[in-house]
Amino acid sequence: MIRDLTDSEARAALPLKWGAVPQGTVPAWVAEMDFAPPPAVTAALTAAVGRGMLGYSCHPGTAQAADLNAAFRGFAERHWGWDVPADSSTPVGDVVTGLRLALDELCPPGPVVVPLPCYPPFRDVVALAGREAAYVGLDPDHDHDDRAAAALDLAAVEQHLEAGARTVLLCHPHNPLGRVAHRAELEALRDLVHAHGARVLVDEVHAPLVLPGQERFVPYLSVDPEAVLVTSHSKTFGTPGLKTAQIVLTDPEETQRLRALPIAANHGHSGLGMVAGAAAWRDSDLWLHALRSRLRVQAEDLRDLLAEHLPQARVRPLEATYLAWLDLRAYGVADPAAVALEHGVRLAPGHDYQPGLEGHVRLNLATSEQRLVQIVTRLAAALT
Amino acid sequence: MIRDLTDSEARAALPLKWGAVPQGTVPAWVAEMDFAPPPAVTAALTAAVGRGMLGYSCHPGTAQAADLNAAFRGFAERHWGWDVPADSSTPVGDVVTGLRLALDELCPPGPVVVPLPCYPPFRDVVALAGREAAYVGLDPDHDHDDRAAAALDLAAVEQHLEAGARTVLLCHPHNPLGRVAHRAELEALRDLVHAHGARVLVDEVHAPLVLPGQERFVPYLSVDPEAVLVTSHSKTFGTPGLKTAQIVLTDPEETQRLRALPIAANHGHSGLGMVAGAAAWRDSDLWLHALRSRLRVQAEDLRDLLAEHLPQARVRPLEATYLAWLDLRAYGVADPAAVALEHGVRLAPGHDYQPGLEGHVRLNLATSEQRLVQIVTRLAAALT
Repeated sequence: MIRDLTDSEARAALPLKWGAVPQGTVPAWVAEMDFAPPPAVTAALTAAVGRGMLGYSCHPGTAQAADLNAAFRGFAERHWGWDVPADSSTPVGDVVTGLRLALDELCPPGPVVVPLPCYPPFRDVVALAGREAAYVGLDPDHDHDDRAAAALDLAAVEQHLEAGARTVLLCHPHNPLGRVAHRAELEALRDLVHAHGARVLVDEVHAPLVLPGQERFVPYLSVDPEAVLVTSHSKTFGTPGLKTAQIVLTDPEETQRLRALPIAANHGHSGLGMVAGAAAWRDSDLWLHALRSRLRVQAEDLRDLLAEHLPQARVRPLEATYLAWLDLRAYGVADPAAVALEHGVRLAPGHDYQPGLEGHVRLNLATSEQRLVQIVTRLAAALT
Repeated sequence: MIRDLTDSEARAALPLKWGAVPQGTVPAWVAEMDFAPPPAVTAALTAAVGRGMLGYSCHPGTAQAADLNAAFRGFAERHWGWDVPADSSTPVGDVVTGLRLALDELCPPGPVVVPLPCYPPFRDVVALAGREAAYVGLDPDHDHDDRAAAALDLAAVEQHLEAGARTVLLCHPHNPLGRVAHRAELEALRDLVHAHGARVLVDEVHAPLVLPGQERFVPYLSVDPEAVLVTSHSKTFGTPGLKTAQIVLTDPEETQRLRALPIAANHGHSGLGMVAGAAAWRDSDLWLHALRSRLRVQAEDLRDLLAEHLPQARVRPLEATYLAWLDLRAYGVADPAAVALEHGVRLAPGHDYQPGLEGHVRLNLATSEQRLVQIVTRLAAALT
């Protein structure tokens, strides 16, 4: 059910991931999968293009917005047992746009707590919103067998809140570490944040990608209805180029205020993205099931390949996402991604996620078995 | 060659224009056409969806960005005799996003001169960018037979420049007045702006819609290479829901600086929008020729219909766009659009374009002949 793209198919389908590397280089950097999108998504898009559905959709009252809303609620109920309030999603252009809008319009003034390492646009969007970032280290090199590894350091969060921070920007599941926070951790964060009159802004774009064998995913908003959720079908269902994400708020009055902003403040979502989102959330469960099984196999293959070719590499257990976090410090190379690029594989350097961090890479394993072998053997050739 | 959409087709194709009016109401408000998109655009989109081209495109080095760039250069050369510098277009999410980005990153600090009436998001985007707006009246009620009618009042612009304004936000051709500035006017504006160390930020989204019988369109950047151009295929080729526009700069170094901004600052364009844009600019000349002829006929029909049903209405001669500007003050109704809505036609109220302006509407004539008759007769029933 998961169809691997050939190199030429991937080059046509993924202009950034494949277009920004030289021919012959295997791209394993940006978070996109070398798989064909779900058939339901392609069918819905083909039908919409056939209907000429290319007009403005920038109004929360459109049928497309209502459909996206209902489809997300159904998905959350089926997969996470979460009863999302009706009509609580407002479309935005993408996750980063949604975070920016949330910082500008929904989050209290003051510094923003950002756990590190983090998705690089987190830092940019906080700066673009004119906010100060208050960083908290996640210790990516803690003993991996310890459940507390890379957990949010609540004492450090508390220090920032006491110093005036009023927003905590959470990535749940975490990119780039692939870790999923459990309910008790989320509840502890909620209690701490509420005690300081602060608010959590949470990006759950990787939530459908919790891998088989893990506890069921707990949406942060389901334990803290006062938070702001930004999510999208984009990372899971392979549609980031279509430009549609959602801000979810449990308070209907706040949703109305968000929707009453001038169009110039929120108009980046595409009609086709909303159509794709509805088809993804509503009609792609079997595909998603197959995807998660496939990704678990890929993660196991990666561990085996690393054991064989890069035995000193440490890899975090992947609880979610298709993005593996590798500690390669044992090989004594400050920037393994730069060296790997010379050997024909593009990885994402660890210092993109945590400035100054040496010896780490993020490796995208959502590709063919053959390319995964190439990625690891070329990385090994680069480091050894 | 121009295919009219049926009501149900239009409702499926144009979620905002048709979705935000009650069944039975004729929508003649937002600037979208009730025509099928150009066949080349639909074909290119269908092929791209078939290739699964749904991935990130937010990198100016992609093949799609290069193609959009080249296609726009060809269009500008064929239609306007303008030799656009190579590689001068940078994709952005849409025109409003491009204006915001230009204000934030490219235009000198200080108030922004905004001619009134104006496209309503102009006012919002200036406010969102944290700029003060310095308004200049265009006198929409000046004698229509006088070429100077609704021309930019350079003396008023100069006053604002002398008081500290450093950006002039131009809509060329003008929405909502449908007026096209001639070369001498553009040159005079350029000289004035340069004398004050200011910069013109120009929206030319309606440029391909200069109607037959008018002088050839003069792109502002062709007389003032220091300006910032924001444009898109969206209004002409019916693709605003796809989210792609372009910022065009003649200075390659400034283009490089724009492209070097973090992705979080400019990532709103969709891959499918870029594909549609290339097909529109490159492969849709015959369709555009047919469109302009059709729109001229519609504009003549509107004049005839108004003469018959609303003889006291004054309508500006339409030099460009499919948006007619009507002065209905003779009928003594402060908000004709509100009354018209009760009679089954949605028009855009004049006060959206110029706060406080009574007795005017903007009427979208890009629809079927039959609907145009309904629009005018229902408006007449509302006012008489």
